[in-house]
Amino acid sequence: MNTPALAPGARMRTEITAQPAVFDAVLRRRADLAGVAAAIERHRPRFALLAARGSSDHAALYAKYLIEVLLRLPAGLASPSTTTLYGAEPDLSGVLYLTVSQSGSSPDLVEATEAARRCGALTVAVTNSPASPLATSAELSVDIGAGDELAVAATKTYTASLLTLYLLVDAVRGGTGEPAAGIGALAEETLTGAAGAVREAAEHYRFVERIVTTGRGYSSATAAEAALKLAETSYLAARAYSGADLLHGPVAAIDAETGVLAVASAGPGGAAMRDVVAAVRERGADVLAVGSAAAEITDGPRIDVPRTAEEVAPILEVLPLQQLALELALARGGDPDRPRGLTKVTRTR
Amino acid sequence: MNTPALAPGARMRTEITAQPAVFDAVLRRRADLAGVAAAIERHRPRFALLAARGSSDHAALYAKYLIEVLLRLPAGLASPSTTTLYGAEPDLSGVLYLTVSQSGSSPDLVEATEAARRCGALTVAVTNSPASPLATSAELSVDIGAGDELAVAATKTYTASLLTLYLLVDAVRGGTGEPAAGIGALAEETLTGAAGAVREAAEHYRFVERIVTTGRGYSSATAAEAALKLAETSYLAARAYSGADLLHGPVAAIDAETGVLAVASAGPGGAAMRDVVAAVRERGADVLAVGSAAAEITDGPRIDVPRTAEEVAPILEVLPLQQLALELALARGGDPDRPRGLTKVTRTR
Repeated sequence: MNTPALAPGARMRTEITAQPAVFDAVLRRRADLAGVAAAIERHRPRFALLAARGSSDHAALYAKYLIEVLLRLPAGLASPSTTTLYGAEPDLSGVLYLTVSQSGSSPDLVEATEAARRCGALTVAVTNSPASPLATSAELSVDIGAGDELAVAATKTYTASLLTLYLLVDAVRGGTGEPAAGIGALAEETLTGAAGAVREAAEHYRFVERIVTTGRGYSSATAAEAALKLAETSYLAARAYSGADLLHGPVAAIDAETGVLAVASAGPGGAAMRDVVAAVRERGADVLAVGSAAAEITDGPRIDVPRTAEEVAPILEVLPLQQLALELALARGGDPDRPRGLTKVTRTR
Repeated sequence: MNTPALAPGARMRTEITAQPAVFDAVLRRRADLAGVAAAIERHRPRFALLAARGSSDHAALYAKYLIEVLLRLPAGLASPSTTTLYGAEPDLSGVLYLTVSQSGSSPDLVEATEAARRCGALTVAVTNSPASPLATSAELSVDIGAGDELAVAATKTYTASLLTLYLLVDAVRGGTGEPAAGIGALAEETLTGAAGAVREAAEHYRFVERIVTTGRGYSSATAAEAALKLAETSYLAARAYSGADLLHGPVAAIDAETGVLAVASAGPGGAAMRDVVAAVRERGADVLAVGSAAAEITDGPRIDVPRTAEEVAPILEVLPLQQLALELALARGGDPDRPRGLTKVTRTR
């Protein structure tokens, strides 16, 4: 490869920084979603299945909450392997099958989407590659329009997927996207405001070997994405638990050597984190709270995020966690743009 | 508490050892499932939602594969918090809502089940406590009949849930449970046959700090349960990835200091693990393969399990992993019967 020499993490930093402008662009194209939203409404789905892998799987988890809470429609995460490995072809008439993939190139997602379409589902691809095999295999497709993503760790395509999914679901219920208005400026405020606290946290966690991330409700997607980002850029043993599951057993593995990143935004999900944080702090864990409700769940270290409606909070609260993954990788002497053994598209069967 | 002094791990060991007899008992009561199976068939569900927490969530993941592959019915894991935190009450007419809970006492599962029933779902509770609030809140209930579980880490209730769910789903499609016949004797053979390899593995992994477990298809439930068991008894940073997701990013975090437990049983899921194991071995990871297809995916250390139909393999392949969690906890000087900060029932809201 004859890539020009770049400072470690330069690509990831550029793409993190680009997010406010990407959000503005996604908002400007909101009207483009009207056709797909109308088709979903006409289809009157009885429920939704969401298929994705990696970071996009966390965007799908976020969409699951949006669909269940805002559309009052039951939703589940699909297991593409029931089709690709076991050849299951269930009756999917009246099902909305939503596939989320940055590249639109994972063969198993393309295959699962084709099968879902054959089985009668309304298939919608949400991707950053409008000419990809996934976009052409689905009946309808939505371009998240995040621009080329060069860093191996997905950042702007993740948040652009969240914002696009929010606007799409909101359009299906006839909304105007109002809770997301100004999210570009709020993202800028988040990134700027968090920089100091992120640097401190990166220094603080520099030698930590295990991190647990946790959130509830909408924020469980953020916790999952933060753990993945930390694992793939800093090689940490990072894992996410829903705040509810954490108290069911894994709390035993938390001790004074575990860093706990607790995500809490204003709303019922954030409020439910108070007990979780109290339980892990009792175990001596080193807790950092992130989100607009951070101050309500801890009097310890925190990274504040501007307050929004809870259903759009995941778009903002992940930003300082992306910054933390970047800074921590650098502090540990790594290059998040060249993680060991990672390529941009993974071709699972 | 004035519990009589017991050797460390004595309770967990007794319950692991009891599983063959528990399976025999579950098989003897197979006919008791006929009424619930017939009711599900009459209901002709258009899809299934599964609600659970902790180990039971892994039993639910197994059931999701059973329902999708054997019943050709789409299925999704429910997020109880969309109801309990956000008050979402979707139209669930024609939905099978299956709640799995050893204790039947988690208030959030009871609340989510009551809400599902109100919203029109056919609610079925699968629990070890037939008089529990969950069993009485659901329209139908199934007793897994594993007997009292005293150890904090669930073992026999987990596998008895799997077997019960298998027999139930099989009965719905008019099966006779034949692939599970003799599973008690096979479990005995698994436990006895694995003992030596488990002791060696416990010695080998004694000082490891991070373990990744991985499986595909039906075995992804086993990988998830093994990671939870290791985390809650040995305080390891253990996490599970589907073999497909692992190659999407987290493989970067795997190095020579990571123990990888790869679960592979004969069938499409096990066969798909060959590429996954090759990829993690390339990264220098210390791989232990477990299952009836272990020999097909590695020429390194392995724990063999008797061969069965793939859809019942998870009932057996988790047994040596339970033994490993127990032996590893003891080798590390802990008492898996007294994990730090764990109680048997967790009351999440």
